[in-house]
Amino acid sequence: MVTGNDAMNRQVVILRAPTGPLSADDFGLREAPAPIPRADEALCRTLLLSLDPVNRGLMVRGGDYRAGLGPGSVMAGFAVAEVVEAAAQGGPPTGSVVFGELGWQELAAVRADSLVPVSGLGPLSHELGVLGVNGMTAWFGLTEIGRPRPGETVVVSAAAGATGTVAVQLARHTGCRTIGIVGSAAKVEVVRELGADEVVVRAEPRELRAALRAAAPDGIDVYFDSVGGAVLDSCLALMRPHGRVVCCGTLAAYDAENAPPGPRGVPALVIAKRLRLEGFVVLDFLSRWPQAQAALAELLRAGEVRAVEEIVDGLDRAPAAFVDLLAGGNIGKRMVRVAHKADL
Amino acid sequence: MVTGNDAMNRQVVILRAPTGPLSADDFGLREAPAPIPRADEALCRTLLLSLDPVNRGLMVRGGDYRAGLGPGSVMAGFAVAEVVEAAAQGGPPTGSVVFGELGWQELAAVRADSLVPVSGLGPLSHELGVLGVNGMTAWFGLTEIGRPRPGETVVVSAAAGATGTVAVQLARHTGCRTIGIVGSAAKVEVVRELGADEVVVRAEPRELRAALRAAAPDGIDVYFDSVGGAVLDSCLALMRPHGRVVCCGTLAAYDAENAPPGPRGVPALVIAKRLRLEGFVVLDFLSRWPQAQAALAELLRAGEVRAVEEIVDGLDRAPAAFVDLLAGGNIGKRMVRVAHKADL
Repeated sequence: MVTGNDAMNRQVVILRAPTGPLSADDFGLREAPAPIPRADEALCRTLLLSLDPVNRGLMVRGGDYRAGLGPGSVMAGFAVAEVVEAAAQGGPPTGSVVFGELGWQELAAVRADSLVPVSGLGPLSHELGVLGVNGMTAWFGLTEIGRPRPGETVVVSAAAGATGTVAVQLARHTGCRTIGIVGSAAKVEVVRELGADEVVVRAEPRELRAALRAAAPDGIDVYFDSVGGAVLDSCLALMRPHGRVVCCGTLAAYDAENAPPGPRGVPALVIAKRLRLEGFVVLDFLSRWPQAQAALAELLRAGEVRAVEEIVDGLDRAPAAFVDLLAGGNIGKRMVRVAHKADL
Repeated sequence: MVTGNDAMNRQVVILRAPTGPLSADDFGLREAPAPIPRADEALCRTLLLSLDPVNRGLMVRGGDYRAGLGPGSVMAGFAVAEVVEAAAQGGPPTGSVVFGELGWQELAAVRADSLVPVSGLGPLSHELGVLGVNGMTAWFGLTEIGRPRPGETVVVSAAAGATGTVAVQLARHTGCRTIGIVGSAAKVEVVRELGADEVVVRAEPRELRAALRAAAPDGIDVYFDSVGGAVLDSCLALMRPHGRVVCCGTLAAYDAENAPPGPRGVPALVIAKRLRLEGFVVLDFLSRWPQAQAALAELLRAGEVRAVEEIVDGLDRAPAAFVDLLAGGNIGKRMVRVAHKADL
């Protein structure tokens, strides 16, 4: 066993539930004894921690599809991890690398049946990004919900983000006219390099709508929405008949004190334009990840899709990196390296 | 030819674009010369005029899926009509009964290729209600968009209305737990008699949500929405995972000065609950009306579905009947008898 009785476990805990924009002071570092797994749990060591805006919601709200966390809890997060000690009742063997919800900590005892082997199809960082939740979100959001056809116009919001960078490339690969929406001018070039035909910088509704209208003069067939709020409203106004909105995320709401008002285009424009708005949760497709991962790995090998990643070193830097992520500071998938596999 | 050169045509025209609740004073009666059809038009005599809330929008707005009408225009409306003089270029023969957009007038020259023969499967009034747009809306909204399965819970708003009365009965017939939402206590009994398991009276959001929660303690699988606004918002909060919202109408918006705010549950609840919101326009399914009409006629014969209708006599009574319809005064399909077929 790698962890002795006296092994300690560094953790990032929630100090207070944020009410407005998140602050690094909302988190604290703590040392706890290494967890002792139950018979159905594996002891896992975090290698790479995934930073995901959606976890912001778990700090206070809950009730959506998972319960919220309170102050004193270890911050929630998915990670790529090594199994340090397999569960007594089976599951992934000691030494295997898995994807699971470990939280922001070095060590976690995790139900063995909740751990998913990584694809092994690329570097570990890809397992959290292009071959992980974000890549799978882009893949299933487009192929299952948006279903763009070649020649259609696809708009991707948060296009420089972890999911958006993959969605832009997949839409391009499908042969769609692809338009990215980004949060700042600094991100325009990245998204253009990924193959977007046009990149629009997020702005006030009137300005945003005009920019989108110029970028998509014939309207939008598929809108991949990771934002909600005013951006969703602007896109709804420009949807073509029988357009599809992939409801994927609510970035506009994550760091807001009050939920933004709902889109005025619902339901009038939905009816008049025969639109379909559909939400999905990528973990529902877990059984089909392997095929999608294989397809994405092939696109990566062929140079059709690039992984866009940022790796921050050290668990203690996770809070600042997460706060900055929610403020839109990232380009591509941001993750935290907590340990190297070679360390073990 | 039935109409001589000196035949006159009584019309209801729009006097002014309403800004708030509609008033009968927004309309005027006018006598015009009988229209002279072009070669591709049939001259038609209105028998029964359909009153449809959606036509309220055409008085001012337009831009949604049809252009609006201005003051001086004949009010728009669908009707069951007799062909008085077939088009020179073909189409329905003289003497046949058709469904078409004649407007609020006794005589209209209508493009022959826009006229649809009535089903002939019931009394003429059914052609506007249960076998017409409303029945088809309920049928395709449920079978194509909502797709309820036996045992699921279906909520129908405007349940005492022209479409709602059919939707409630079809949902019941499918074997669904069926809950109707109505605008006033006076409508509860009607909807119960149509087979609804529960009937909830529209109320302020908090109260409405509590009543719906009591009526649908396990949540809603399919919400047939003809209302939008706060009712849609309340239902979204109670949807079960993978629930479907049939976006059919926006009654809440038709008579409002400003569009109601969009539902706050979009997109957060849509994502978390994996919902699908989908709009449709029943005329898109026109080629499939005959099969649906035959199926509904069979249900009518078998007593599984009842037609709920109100017939107002006389074109001059159309404005008042329409104003009252928008205020929720109708039960079932309200229409105006402009002429008897026997009159001709």
